Amino acid sequence: MSILVVGTVALDSVETPFGTAENIFGGSATYATLSASYFHRPIQLVSVVGHDLPADYVQALRKRNIDIEGLEMRPDEKTFAWRGRYHYDLNERDTLATDLNVLEGFDPTLPEGYRTASIVCLGNLDPTVQRSVLHQIDAPDFVVADTMNFWIQQTPDSLRELLSEVDCLIINDAEARELANEPNLIRAASHIRALGPDILVIKKGEHGAMLFTDGIMFSAPAFPLEDIQDPTGAGDTFLGGFIGYLARKGVVDTPTLKHAVVYGSAMASFVVEAFGPERLFNLEQDAIHERLQAFRELSKIPAFEVPVGSEA
Amino acid sequence: MSILVVGTVALDSVETPFGTAENIFGGSATYATLSASYFHRPIQLVSVVGHDLPADYVQALRKRNIDIEGLEMRPDEKTFAWRGRYHYDLNERDTLATDLNVLEGFDPTLPEGYRTASIVCLGNLDPTVQRSVLHQIDAPDFVVADTMNFWIQQTPDSLRELLSEVDCLIINDAEARELANEPNLIRAASHIRALGPDILVIKKGEHGAMLFTDGIMFSAPAFPLEDIQDPTGAGDTFLGGFIGYLARKGVVDTPTLKHAVVYGSAMASFVVEAFGPERLFNLEQDAIHERLQAFRELSKIPAFEVPVGSEA
Repeated sequence: MSILVVGTVALDSVETPFGTAENIFGGSATYATLSASYFHRPIQLVSVVGHDLPADYVQALRKRNIDIEGLEMRPDEKTFAWRGRYHYDLNERDTLATDLNVLEGFDPTLPEGYRTASIVCLGNLDPTVQRSVLHQIDAPDFVVADTMNFWIQQTPDSLRELLSEVDCLIINDAEARELANEPNLIRAASHIRALGPDILVIKKGEHGAMLFTDGIMFSAPAFPLEDIQDPTGAGDTFLGGFIGYLARKGVVDTPTLKHAVVYGSAMASFVVEAFGPERLFNLEQDAIHERLQAFRELSKIPAFEVPVGSEA
Repeated sequence: MSILVVGTVALDSVETPFGTAENIFGGSATYATLSASYFHRPIQLVSVVGHDLPADYVQALRKRNIDIEGLEMRPDEKTFAWRGRYHYDLNERDTLATDLNVLEGFDPTLPEGYRTASIVCLGNLDPTVQRSVLHQIDAPDFVVADTMNFWIQQTPDSLRELLSEVDCLIINDAEARELANEPNLIRAASHIRALGPDILVIKKGEHGAMLFTDGIMFSAPAFPLEDIQDPTGAGDTFLGGFIGYLARKGVVDTPTLKHAVVYGSAMASFVVEAFGPERLFNLEQDAIHERLQAFRELSKIPAFEVPVGSEA
């Protein structure tokens, strides 16, 4: 059972209240594959980069045994670059520059060995490209997609077609409200699930994540950290942990989905501790285990006495 | 063991995306006492109103067996009035008017029977008034306070003195960040606890609430509702459920505090279903019980297999 991830590989320049970093390793596929690599193999990456991506960035993917046959290298072009600044409270950011470079006209042809992928993870891209990738895969067992407000506004028809073909959508709360044109998250979730994805995960940044599926609503907190350096990639890292755990278990039932949300949240809680994906290069399984247990402790409500209340 | 609540009794005029209401029953002491009344008695209310408060509003308190001996009536003045408008997503509101009226110069003298209160709940008021009330009580077992950004900015010294005298502070996340002058909530919580309150509860509106006490961090979601009519009073209702449950149990240990947060959250989830405190007039114990169980279900993480992850 292989996981295929299509998304961006980027050079990020980031400014947070705690420091700055120039041209560090980034991109949705980078974070998602590194994160998933702690739970499952093989992981097949589909993306495109230019001549300016440092060789040790590619080496960091190889070290995590990520299959990069699907990572196209264009020697005459530059890598996709993003520049952003986070506000004082880290919940909001300004995009200062987006240079698409190699991403312009990106429409990958999958290597032969990628066409039998079981779990397909369609990172945030033009939904037409996401569908083109999806249609090159023989018989995927489980399809997860991400999107963003840009595609919700600019390519609504193509996005609707995509949604009718995916099993799971993972987006943030503002995107969910915009996609459903509904401020109430519960109603927004129903609207979105009616468009196709049976499973919906709504990410709320420092406020955690929610899972919606048939008759099930599950709320996981984000892990409260004293020292957050850089929130970049937290959502993609969540996605990687989520699909990595699902692939590892090989089933998609309710307890597994709840755990997958917590695994995603745990991986995201590591990545924000340093600039870029650094924390995902060499994470100990024990550290992951401890963080998962801490999550359970954080949100565990002791059993209630029965009856719970009565008139005094 | 009696609960004493000092706070406002108000006439609220509220505009939400779902309707408007003029001069409805409101105020922090109103919501907090009504909410606490489902878990404990006696509850002693300390506040002040004018000639324009409809008699059936006072009657609604009496029906819940709330002791209103400490509710001062000033026949020549008008009741404190608040007018506000909620935004489309209900997370933000604009205060359109605040008419202090009877609240101006409010500095209550407690009835004799109130001076033996065990649990003292100091609703959001000038910290000098909160301390004056506190000092009229013989030997309180547990003191809870609320405050807001206005007092953090305008009366920082008086607020610091108050904090050194309380066991528990309940504020929202923006207030916590401002009070600690620290954007990170975990660090803000440490700063605030160092100022006095051993127990800190940070309310995050639709994102739930967090409890911080010695070595303990607990995160409870808010109950996701499809139909929210009016968020007014949710925080005060939380406070009422929290202290009501603590009084009912008569102990302040970790499981009880966690439950108290969930009780507060459950009560808040009812009050927002209608305009004003209407839902708190006649709530069934069964409905409370069901909502509490739904909370547990919502945030319950199934036990993890051990080991939780390993290299594939």
